[in-house]
Amino acid sequence: MTDKSLNISLPQGVRDMLPEEAEKARYVEETIVSVLEKNGFRRVITPLLEYIDVLSLGLGAELQDKIFKFVDPVSGKIIAIRPDITPQVARMVSTRMRDYPLPIKLYYNENILRCEEPRGGLPSELLQIGAEYIGEDSPDADAEVIATAVEAIKKVGVRDFKIDIGHIGFFKGILEDIKASKDIKKKIKDAVLIKDNSSLQEVLSSVREVRGDNAIKILSDLPSLFGDKGVIDKLKSQVKNETAIKALDDLASIINMLEKKKLKNYITIDLGEVRGFDYYTGVIFEGFTKGFGRAILKGGRYNNLLEKYGYPCPATGFAFNTENVIAAVK
Amino acid sequence: MTDKSLNISLPQGVRDMLPEEAEKARYVEETIVSVLEKNGFRRVITPLLEYIDVLSLGLGAELQDKIFKFVDPVSGKIIAIRPDITPQVARMVSTRMRDYPLPIKLYYNENILRCEEPRGGLPSELLQIGAEYIGEDSPDADAEVIATAVEAIKKVGVRDFKIDIGHIGFFKGILEDIKASKDIKKKIKDAVLIKDNSSLQEVLSSVREVRGDNAIKILSDLPSLFGDKGVIDKLKSQVKNETAIKALDDLASIINMLEKKKLKNYITIDLGEVRGFDYYTGVIFEGFTKGFGRAILKGGRYNNLLEKYGYPCPATGFAFNTENVIAAVK
Repeated sequence: MTDKSLNISLPQGVRDMLPEEAEKARYVEETIVSVLEKNGFRRVITPLLEYIDVLSLGLGAELQDKIFKFVDPVSGKIIAIRPDITPQVARMVSTRMRDYPLPIKLYYNENILRCEEPRGGLPSELLQIGAEYIGEDSPDADAEVIATAVEAIKKVGVRDFKIDIGHIGFFKGILEDIKASKDIKKKIKDAVLIKDNSSLQEVLSSVREVRGDNAIKILSDLPSLFGDKGVIDKLKSQVKNETAIKALDDLASIINMLEKKKLKNYITIDLGEVRGFDYYTGVIFEGFTKGFGRAILKGGRYNNLLEKYGYPCPATGFAFNTENVIAAVK
Repeated sequence: MTDKSLNISLPQGVRDMLPEEAEKARYVEETIVSVLEKNGFRRVITPLLEYIDVLSLGLGAELQDKIFKFVDPVSGKIIAIRPDITPQVARMVSTRMRDYPLPIKLYYNENILRCEEPRGGLPSELLQIGAEYIGEDSPDADAEVIATAVEAIKKVGVRDFKIDIGHIGFFKGILEDIKASKDIKKKIKDAVLIKDNSSLQEVLSSVREVRGDNAIKILSDLPSLFGDKGVIDKLKSQVKNETAIKALDDLASIINMLEKKKLKNYITIDLGEVRGFDYYTGVIFEGFTKGFGRAILKGGRYNNLLEKYGYPCPATGFAFNTENVIAAVK
């Protein structure tokens, strides 16, 4: 039966893990999960499949295009393979956990499937370990989840990592203070998103300020608005917009709390960071290691997500890309 | 946004696990995995997706109909969501682990998707923890995997369970000794499979023996050929077919080894058991608990599976249905 013409290949975006790598994965998973449990997060398991109209309630535009989906032949409804777990947790809490005392702290360790555009929209499996802190709208809660993420990364043994911390509200607030069409504002956002400074300067040249603040200057400076706490202090003297001020205050509180926990060396402020799924409403953050291009974790505050499933309730959280963490552990 | 008309339902065959259940799942998974690791099984991770022509090489007819599949728009090839992990492990070992010293002992802890016929072929997610013992064709290896399964179940805290042990070779051997068309033999197999005694007696009434053994009597007795070692002793005096004798000898060796390990109370012999995926070639077994109808584990010897991926190599193993184990832990 040894057929030499046998083509035993795997679909793109798909991988086996042999024992050496799978055991490293187990070590990474167990270590992260033990830190999450120690910090009071409890496990949940969500289904691989969801009706797309239910799942889509909680997905940002960015992920809508990446959903792998099929028609259920019996009901005629469209079923999706989960590309993200957070909307599933939001659904679960909103529909089945309303009698749990707040805050509710949950974690998961699952596989997801996304149709990634670089590869012609082919499905690609990712492993995620995530934590969600539901029911509290405070910098304390944000600082706690970031500190938990840092604790987990350190415990796993990843060295030389940084958490880049930004805030959706800052950019949103500054944008409020300029006079420009929706279309222009989208162009500004896109330029900031991909950190295309020359496009940003070009589109800003056609824009007028509304309130005489230096909103345009701040927008134009966005790509360079990163560093330590000094960035916040400097901006606070320039910014008049309330949403933006609230964002800076939130960020300052979060940074102070993280410094108290002696995590100063692991954090960078980056106000030019606006990437992320559309469900984020406040602080956003990403973890990177030296010499490894892809993020090992992403997270942020999403105060409007549970409401979409009928339970208005603030929340914050993050997810590790398990395979990127494994790759970052040498 | 609280829309009372919002229909937040889940597809059939799909479930959430809230913390109480998910934590029980974690306890069950961790306990089973720790027993597997203690016994030298090493973790592997297989992909959610496979090309169907590759996966199908190792799937029995029973599962071929249960595969959830879709056309990859780029390559035009058909991609399957795994309904079974064992063929994936066989593929992985055959193509990427040939330089590992034998035996190779592997385990996995994954989700699978099957289109289950009772529900109109809708996809249904199952969690499986499985162990594969590759590279040794001996009753020792079979006894070792069965003993490992028993150790895991006991450690999880399941009480009042039994492992039903049968052998594909016994039934196959006895069938060799009768004169009947393929079609009739299939009818016999089907009747035994669903334990339909009256159909079995009816179809057997038209069959002749070839060698003057009492093959017809043995086939007709199949549904009652269960119990302790006495069943084997009794049959050994009646059976002449070599394949069937070899099966009884294998079984006797396995049972003796399990008795030496003081596991006698957990095992039952059931030679009328012919269910299972088509890839089994030798001993087959299933674990049941008192008062819980569904099997908590299934396994057996599959000596021809790796060969289909180009690496002739015997193997034996089993898989827990994790959710059934959880349900069996009170």
